[in-house]
Amino acid sequence: MKKYLREEIKNLNAYEVINRDYRVKLDANEGVDWIGGLNRYPVDRSDKLREALAEKLDKSPDELVLGNGSSELIELMMKAYLEAGETVVSFSPSFSMYKIFTIIHKGKYEDYPLDGMERLNVDGFIDFVKEKKAKLVILGNPNNPTGTLIPREDILKIVRSVDAMVILDEAYIEFSNYPKGDDTREFENLVVLRTFSKARGLAGIRLGYMIANKETIGYINRVKSPYNVNVLTQEMGLKALENDSITSNNIEIIKRERERMKMFLEEKELKPLSSGANFLFFKAPKNIFDALWDKDILIRKFGGELEDYYRLTIGTPEENDIVIEAIEEVENARS
Amino acid sequence: MKKYLREEIKNLNAYEVINRDYRVKLDANEGVDWIGGLNRYPVDRSDKLREALAEKLDKSPDELVLGNGSSELIELMMKAYLEAGETVVSFSPSFSMYKIFTIIHKGKYEDYPLDGMERLNVDGFIDFVKEKKAKLVILGNPNNPTGTLIPREDILKIVRSVDAMVILDEAYIEFSNYPKGDDTREFENLVVLRTFSKARGLAGIRLGYMIANKETIGYINRVKSPYNVNVLTQEMGLKALENDSITSNNIEIIKRERERMKMFLEEKELKPLSSGANFLFFKAPKNIFDALWDKDILIRKFGGELEDYYRLTIGTPEENDIVIEAIEEVENARS
Repeated sequence: MKKYLREEIKNLNAYEVINRDYRVKLDANEGVDWIGGLNRYPVDRSDKLREALAEKLDKSPDELVLGNGSSELIELMMKAYLEAGETVVSFSPSFSMYKIFTIIHKGKYEDYPLDGMERLNVDGFIDFVKEKKAKLVILGNPNNPTGTLIPREDILKIVRSVDAMVILDEAYIEFSNYPKGDDTREFENLVVLRTFSKARGLAGIRLGYMIANKETIGYINRVKSPYNVNVLTQEMGLKALENDSITSNNIEIIKRERERMKMFLEEKELKPLSSGANFLFFKAPKNIFDALWDKDILIRKFGGELEDYYRLTIGTPEENDIVIEAIEEVENARS
Repeated sequence: MKKYLREEIKNLNAYEVINRDYRVKLDANEGVDWIGGLNRYPVDRSDKLREALAEKLDKSPDELVLGNGSSELIELMMKAYLEAGETVVSFSPSFSMYKIFTIIHKGKYEDYPLDGMERLNVDGFIDFVKEKKAKLVILGNPNNPTGTLIPREDILKIVRSVDAMVILDEAYIEFSNYPKGDDTREFENLVVLRTFSKARGLAGIRLGYMIANKETIGYINRVKSPYNVNVLTQEMGLKALENDSITSNNIEIIKRERERMKMFLEEKELKPLSSGANFLFFKAPKNIFDALWDKDILIRKFGGELEDYYRLTIGTPEENDIVIEAIEEVENARS
């Protein structure tokens, strides 16, 4: 959306990359081929992968930008929209990189506390966004690290009410029962981020994508580095799209296991929050973390205000059994 | 170097990634493995590749940062060192992304013209840097698109004289006869960038690296996105390091071919500049570009002040023969 675009970006032209068939290509200072044509730069905007993804999502390819994980896409939004000193608002707790990226991109970060680490007071949040004159609003949904979901009508109310661009970070959305699709055609100030790192099981290739209306995508392409997604990642992304059934199977397993682990943690009175993601967030005595750590079982712990809170990724049934056994052991040792 | 670091970055902690052996890893919300362990995030700072590269370069691993091409590394320098509104200086003509990155990172870009598109008036340049109060100075060496080299003593004079961080972009240095090594241990304000995209023939994997003193590398790691280099690129980078002889062979071929192509262009009175890179820069009538284009031979053309100038990458002997033949044909048609 042009209204919120940085002044300097309104006049910036994207770096031009010529895409055409050739007999001899001597226009990009590429080296000599010695291994599978990797001497060539990637296709700048990942055309083939972008087209395949657009088809899956029932979008047009020019409603998508691909990047090195959602990280790059959050940064692209800040590059395009955030003037120095302007404010980014999210809630807390949420993904700690939102704040770090804001500082890196010379903005100010303000967060609004969730009620009981869980529920978003939507009207309070909207007032907060207005009071802080935010240029960008970031909503993690499901939220990391809590796993909680904001109801769709609340998200749309925020998008409608704020005078800002809204980034909806849906990294974990496939693990929820949220309706498919997005609302970027209806709302010019809405941008949705998704990733191949979670449900698609490909964190190693660093691939994320942004869905937005064509105009916004055009602005994002102005600030995107040329050739940002490498050839190998593009190829693996295509392969993933051809293997959708693996992804849906894994999602079903993780959702089932999440319920099992949630019941287990509840039994142990560790009060996990309801989660729409592939992890559970709970408060626990430190000896549980330590006991897991000693058995080389890694879960995420936090510092600061989240001291004593933990985030457990839902693993395979076998991995989860190992976690259950280890926690049972701690509990048994205590009694 | 801390003196020039952005105020906000002085207090920023890097995103923490725990690297340790594990039996069960449930701390990073990764998905289920379905293809070669790519469900795991990459090792955050590309440790294995970084160590192998450090050994080759006779550096310590903590004098290196790896990134998605030199592009990401230039951006990391701006993230760490460039306050909003501060100035980046380079000369012109040079790589057009220097200016675009500066605008994206909310700085001002100023360039100093090379004499005859070729020779850098060092004292004039130093005065210019001081007058503009530059925070960052970028020197492409060999320069893109001209291919020209700045003498080492001139570079060191600049590094010594300016009150700024100096980024020495050596993307093409392996094609020159420059002495190996770098001066980052001696000069705290010097940062050197290199890439696997050119001499190593791997533009497709997007891998570059920064050499700097340990303190500067520590600051850069604060602004680097976690897991920035994907698993596949790290693996291919390691493979490249195991195949050094392929690279040195290709460099020799390209250097020989560069001399052949330079002589040919000189014969045709197209006055190519002396080049230390894998390309030649020259002025030509537009019909030469058009004739090549019509034969699906792509060379780089420019707009603006560089209208009528062209940059020809040095290809394999066979590719270069095709270029020679095509240009001969244009010349013959004219006479």
